[in-house]
Amino acid sequence: MIGGSVGLAARERLGATVRGFDPAEGVLQTARERGAVDVRCGSVSQAVAEADTVVVAAPVGALPEAVAQSLEAASPDTVVTDVGSTKRAIVAAADDERFVGGHPLAGAETAGVAHARADLFDGATWYLTPTATTSGLLYERLHRTIAALGARPAAIDATDHDRVLAAVSHLPHVLANVLVTQAGEALPAGGEGLTATGPSFRDATRVAGANSRIWGDIYLSNADALAERIDASIARLAEVRDLLRAGDRDGVTAWNDAAAAERRGLLEAGVAGGPVQELRVSVPNRPGVVAQVALALGRAGVNIVDMALHPTPDMTEGLIALWVSGDREADRAVELIAELDLPVARA
Amino acid sequence: MIGGSVGLAARERLGATVRGFDPAEGVLQTARERGAVDVRCGSVSQAVAEADTVVVAAPVGALPEAVAQSLEAASPDTVVTDVGSTKRAIVAAADDERFVGGHPLAGAETAGVAHARADLFDGATWYLTPTATTSGLLYERLHRTIAALGARPAAIDATDHDRVLAAVSHLPHVLANVLVTQAGEALPAGGEGLTATGPSFRDATRVAGANSRIWGDIYLSNADALAERIDASIARLAEVRDLLRAGDRDGVTAWNDAAAAERRGLLEAGVAGGPVQELRVSVPNRPGVVAQVALALGRAGVNIVDMALHPTPDMTEGLIALWVSGDREADRAVELIAELDLPVARA
Repeated sequence: MIGGSVGLAARERLGATVRGFDPAEGVLQTARERGAVDVRCGSVSQAVAEADTVVVAAPVGALPEAVAQSLEAASPDTVVTDVGSTKRAIVAAADDERFVGGHPLAGAETAGVAHARADLFDGATWYLTPTATTSGLLYERLHRTIAALGARPAAIDATDHDRVLAAVSHLPHVLANVLVTQAGEALPAGGEGLTATGPSFRDATRVAGANSRIWGDIYLSNADALAERIDASIARLAEVRDLLRAGDRDGVTAWNDAAAAERRGLLEAGVAGGPVQELRVSVPNRPGVVAQVALALGRAGVNIVDMALHPTPDMTEGLIALWVSGDREADRAVELIAELDLPVARA
Repeated sequence: MIGGSVGLAARERLGATVRGFDPAEGVLQTARERGAVDVRCGSVSQAVAEADTVVVAAPVGALPEAVAQSLEAASPDTVVTDVGSTKRAIVAAADDERFVGGHPLAGAETAGVAHARADLFDGATWYLTPTATTSGLLYERLHRTIAALGARPAAIDATDHDRVLAAVSHLPHVLANVLVTQAGEALPAGGEGLTATGPSFRDATRVAGANSRIWGDIYLSNADALAERIDASIARLAEVRDLLRAGDRDGVTAWNDAAAAERRGLLEAGVAGGPVQELRVSVPNRPGVVAQVALALGRAGVNIVDMALHPTPDMTEGLIALWVSGDREADRAVELIAELDLPVARA
């Protein structure tokens, strides 16, 4: 999906000629039909030989070899990057001035070139992990290329990248796994399962048990950073457990307030206009109602920082949570949504 | 919101006369305007005196006193219930054959009678916690009333209830809090915050730092059951941390596979037709596209067990995850969705 989307975007937006190689049967054929490649190549070296830019899209475990092959076949003036979810291992393995590690935050939910889209990277953060040996010229070319694909390139040290991803991607997957096992132990056998749970549980466990072939690789390629985050999580959990056992209301409240402040801080980082405010809108499952809300706010210049949809299981109704930046914007948003005859409140 | 929705549903669906009381100024006025009550009462005893059924909707911490007042004022033939999120404390406090603890799994996301809806409970599980002293006659009346409001009443022991809710509601909130603090520690200061995270993090942290006044009460009223779940979570986390530090690929895979099996088990509990299958559909933010998919499957008799929407931040596109029951249904669903010209794949 990632490789195919790079191909589609590069052809549509850069007018590039895309030469593709994939070791699995049929993939290049599909990529060609979808318009993601111009030329089907029979080997890495054939695909890479005349390239300005090489993007290696493969499972994390297969990256070191595929990147090494690409660097061997590429010219001295070719920049080589990858799209793997962890960066230290590949950056250490590919110690070459032409290599820059990369990681677009998009498209992780599906696999396969059939899902490729030219607009997949629009507005998405795309991490790049240059090192002291990286060629400045080649890095600059890659940066421009990625921006032209629609993404927002962001340079980050490979170690910092893996620490951040351990916290915001790998740890959520681990905790989702823990949650489903806890529910499995607590729910009565032969009971109603997920129908007897609420939306917070469903949201928190959708990624539980994600594909072991992919996620085993990711966890292990970032084992020490993830283990550190797990240790820190255990310490936080032990803290609140002790407060609960002691019946310490002030302590529990302070612990929860700290989390609320952290979430607000995360929403506000990089956002101007004052503290982020949360709105809750009850919506019928009327065709286009989400677009209607978004358009009404967009027309009035109210920027939606984040949003969440919570459909009911039968999808006859639902709730939209919206985060907007600043008190004034929140008041304006409430007015605009009320004009659409939808019940809305500040959370 | 819960009390108001009970009032609306009782008036519309049971033809009941609803007598309401609320200690906060203005609430009854709004409830009257929304059509949630027939009669505004100045005290608990005035509201309860001639009632067949009394529903106490108040924060968990205020329930014991409100329920005691209701039981004192109610006739010997009146059933009294509550809608609190934890049940052991109130069931122990209200030891009376006329009291049955209750907890509808609906509407927890918003507060206030302005959000009340007659259809809030449609299809929702509504736990009831009768005890050995509960009057069978009164329990049966309450059961019928709740079913007539649109919900699915489910009897459960109060202790089991609190253990289940610790796992499927309170623990997800605690883990969401842990996640935001981990991200706060890992993300570079002054960085991009949530824009630099993926959908799994956003899903898992939407409830982080939920209203301390409400959630402090809930955590503390279920402190020991929740502390037990936290201890079990710590043990699971220590297990996977040790596997990661040892670089044990088979162990990590087995650990992840077990979570995948648990999640499938939760989806399948109470569902006939074979193992639940997951589909991923890429959708443009076209008005009504979600309804279109749901209707196409509904018309063909394909039952959607669960679904999740993942809009992109700019809401120009998104992904629907759908879970359907059985291989044949999944194949049929893929056909039907492909006919709508939407990219779809089995996950």
